[in-house]
Amino acid sequence: MHRAGDSGDGGAATRRGRRPGRDLCEIADLSPAEACAVLAAATRVLPLAEGTGARELPILRGAQILSVFSEPSTRTRLSFEVAARRLGAEVVHFVQDAASSASKGESERDALENLDAMGFDAVVVRDRRDGVPRAWTEVMRARVVNAGDGVNEHPTQALLDALTILEAFGRAPAQGAMTGLRVAVCGDVRHGRVAHSDLQLFRTLGAQCVVAGPGDLAPPELAARLGATAAPTLDDALAGADVAVMLRIQRERLGADVAIPDAASYHAAWGLTPARLRLLAPGAIVMHPGPINRGVEIADAVADGPHSRILRQVTLGVAVRMAVLARACGVELL
Amino acid sequence: MHRAGDSGDGGAATRRGRRPGRDLCEIADLSPAEACAVLAAATRVLPLAEGTGARELPILRGAQILSVFSEPSTRTRLSFEVAARRLGAEVVHFVQDAASSASKGESERDALENLDAMGFDAVVVRDRRDGVPRAWTEVMRARVVNAGDGVNEHPTQALLDALTILEAFGRAPAQGAMTGLRVAVCGDVRHGRVAHSDLQLFRTLGAQCVVAGPGDLAPPELAARLGATAAPTLDDALAGADVAVMLRIQRERLGADVAIPDAASYHAAWGLTPARLRLLAPGAIVMHPGPINRGVEIADAVADGPHSRILRQVTLGVAVRMAVLARACGVELL
Amino acid sequence: MHRAGDSGDGGAATRRGRRPGRDLCEIADLSPAEACAVLAAATRVLPLAEGTGARELPILRGAQILSVFSEPSTRTRLSFEVAARRLGAEVVHFVQDAASSASKGESERDALENLDAMGFDAVVVRDRRDGVPRAWTEVMRARVVNAGDGVNEHPTQALLDALTILEAFGRAPAQGAMTGLRVAVCGDVRHGRVAHSDLQLFRTLGAQCVVAGPGDLAPPELAARLGATAAPTLDDALAGADVAVMLRIQRERLGADVAIPDAASYHAAWGLTPARLRLLAPGAIVMHPGPINRGVEIADAVADGPHSRILRQVTLGVAVRMAVLARACGVELL
Repeated sequence: MHRAGDSGDGGAATRRGRRPGRDLCEIADLSPAEACAVLAAATRVLPLAEGTGARELPILRGAQILSVFSEPSTRTRLSFEVAARRLGAEVVHFVQDAASSASKGESERDALENLDAMGFDAVVVRDRRDGVPRAWTEVMRARVVNAGDGVNEHPTQALLDALTILEAFGRAPAQGAMTGLRVAVCGDVRHGRVAHSDLQLFRTLGAQCVVAGPGDLAPPELAARLGATAAPTLDDALAGADVAVMLRIQRERLGADVAIPDAASYHAAWGLTPARLRLLAPGAIVMHPGPINRGVEIADAVADGPHSRILRQVTLGVAVRMAVLARACGVELL
Repeated sequence: MHRAGDSGDGGAATRRGRRPGRDLCEIADLSPAEACAVLAAATRVLPLAEGTGARELPILRGAQILSVFSEPSTRTRLSFEVAARRLGAEVVHFVQDAASSASKGESERDALENLDAMGFDAVVVRDRRDGVPRAWTEVMRARVVNAGDGVNEHPTQALLDALTILEAFGRAPAQGAMTGLRVAVCGDVRHGRVAHSDLQLFRTLGAQCVVAGPGDLAPPELAARLGATAAPTLDDALAGADVAVMLRIQRERLGADVAIPDAASYHAAWGLTPARLRLLAPGAIVMHPGPINRGVEIADAVADGPHSRILRQVTLGVAVRMAVLARACGVELL
Repeated sequence: MHRAGDSGDGGAATRRGRRPGRDLCEIADLSPAEACAVLAAATRVLPLAEGTGARELPILRGAQILSVFSEPSTRTRLSFEVAARRLGAEVVHFVQDAASSASKGESERDALENLDAMGFDAVVVRDRRDGVPRAWTEVMRARVVNAGDGVNEHPTQALLDALTILEAFGRAPAQGAMTGLRVAVCGDVRHGRVAHSDLQLFRTLGAQCVVAGPGDLAPPELAARLGATAAPTLDDALAGADVAVMLRIQRERLGADVAIPDAASYHAAWGLTPARLRLLAPGAIVMHPGPINRGVEIADAVADGPHSRILRQVTLGVAVRMAVLARACGVELL
């Protein structure tokens, strides 16, 4: 077990006596070289994530990971939990419900500092509010891993999406590894934290990205800011794409936006159907962060068809989270 | 650690790249030899279950067990959890509540496949619906262990009941080990998944079984189908029995059935009282799957008396579940 | 791993075949020598609690700890959980909710005996009712650790408070280690289980204790019974004190007691303000069991100021609970 150095942290870390390890709040926290190192580490532990090799690699034995999911997400929570345990770490869930310290009039900051004083190695946080993970890095000694914050970012999803693409196209994690690949990210890009993290990482790795979505949900200004171009229709976005990332449309948005009155209309205009698959480049793959809305953003035959890498994303997600948690705890996955 | 072979599985297993290990959905999944092997393995790990020997036998270190209890059952859930952890395995609970993926419009099958893609070694399932564990074996790569499905079966309860009987009568787990023993299973046999699994396993091991219950709850046709005979009264069933298995009467059934208008009437006609203990054979034992309804199907003095093996069943249950989980994970408990 | 002897337990332990280990229901369960031994053991494992040394000391590997919190207390529950896991033990939570065995008509005693038959090494219990932990020692084979019972006691809080004081004043845990120190315990002493345990332990270790609180909440008779003296005002109690333990005022008590009509009045008369800090002895420290009511029993500037040891209490709490759990499991922390 090797504890990696703590370079790159400011005075706050020193002041708090922070242990080795690194936060992951947004994709920009990773240099291209660091992103590739995480992906390479994930590749090395993939047999554990698949359940096909050894059952554990106990390099984090005894590490205590705090999990704080204030927004429900069973799949992401379990993915982190399994990832931690495959490395021998323990996961403790903090549920801030009506019965907890919140109801006792304690401030959130006091609650956080209190938890942090118990010596956790890392905290995994999912929150409805943008920027919460970053804010916690100012308060906590434990390293912070963002499991999705509001409509901001979801960096581990972007890493697992990148690994899914690299694996599908037989490319090793390295700078520029996505060069020459055209990736279409389709749907509600504006409110999609997955899209935000995906586009930044894919661009960093050299991909050419295009977005498309109904009404004002994937506008050119936003696309430009994320290093992508905007296509006017789904067909335009898919044309010649090697990868189609179909975003989940929030059901509460259907009908609330004039551009998407109902699920059937959404599917007709913005759903990935078998007919639209023919627009993709040969050998293209289809991805979705899940949970999928069958018959809305994706047709059954596509979700279950040979282009789909949706379940593979889940497995690679465990591997990526193993690598991210090891990094957070300051341990190298050799 | 030895990973047992995967013989006996069909093409589906091969197609899905299923790891070694075996499902346990119903008692019929076990040949008599396999049932005896599980019971013998449970006997070997009994000191761990009792907390009297070593604290763990980490042959499943790093194994990830998914626990999905859609019907509440604290005791069975904890029994599996303790059993898994005594072997070094980790247990992750999936709670399908309103806040989880179900509320996001995801189908149950998609949710299951998604969970399965995280690489669990085995899944323990309790469900209100008959046949759910068997159905999951068609969808999941992880091996399925039934912790009670509807009114169908509860195979680990049957195994622990068998082990309780064998231990009480000083018999080693072997084919025909219950030969010569008369077992009475009393109460609501029709809706009793414990009864269904018990009767099949006890008959397989050579016992002579008799059932009795109020109204239409233990009819001769059902008894015959389960390899037992039906007695008209509790006294007839208990006469000369070596083992009395008293089933829990669901309180919601009292009054709903003309044959059992209230708890007092049930106790008078179908409760095991100290007076009725005298009908049993010398050295007979009393069992109950729990939780007990004191003063309904069993009198206080009987539950707490010298014939009772009710708490011993709980301890043996942990041992049996250790053996079943090891089998599910494809590891032999030597 | 050395399993300590079982001396000092009565016939009940022998009768039930209880494993080595010792209960901790009240501070009086610890002789002065035993209290010092626990504190010394906590000091030895402090680097683990701080997360600054090794990540675990797996002397309780495989031990199964049952956690039963019928009163919400996230922080205490997590503290025990982290403590157990740093020693390699597993924690299982039993939640007695409407969906559990309670709703099935099972008695609490049956539920407890049932849980105990699963072979837990120890049980950690928080309950609204005074005396529940002690009562459980009569029913369970597992050793019982009190995590707070009603208005009775909270012995692990007293141990961590003592360790905080000893550390602050550079004293090693030994008999009479607090001799010469003046400790003020301020607020609702009557209903404060922390106060009850603190005062007994501090006195045992040689401290001179004084209490003060509004109305009838810290009367002389009660003070005398706990080995302390009563001061008429907060200022009198703080005068020359080396340690100020500020108790949490239950918000539901504000207004219910004529002496404390509202939070502002409480703060004016009974809150620790920067001005009142000047009454303390040089080098004095401020403690609070948490969660704190900012601006009620303690001012922001005091809670966050240089006298405050509030967060250090939390860290030392993990170390103390490691020592207490090891003792409960009969394993010496060398």
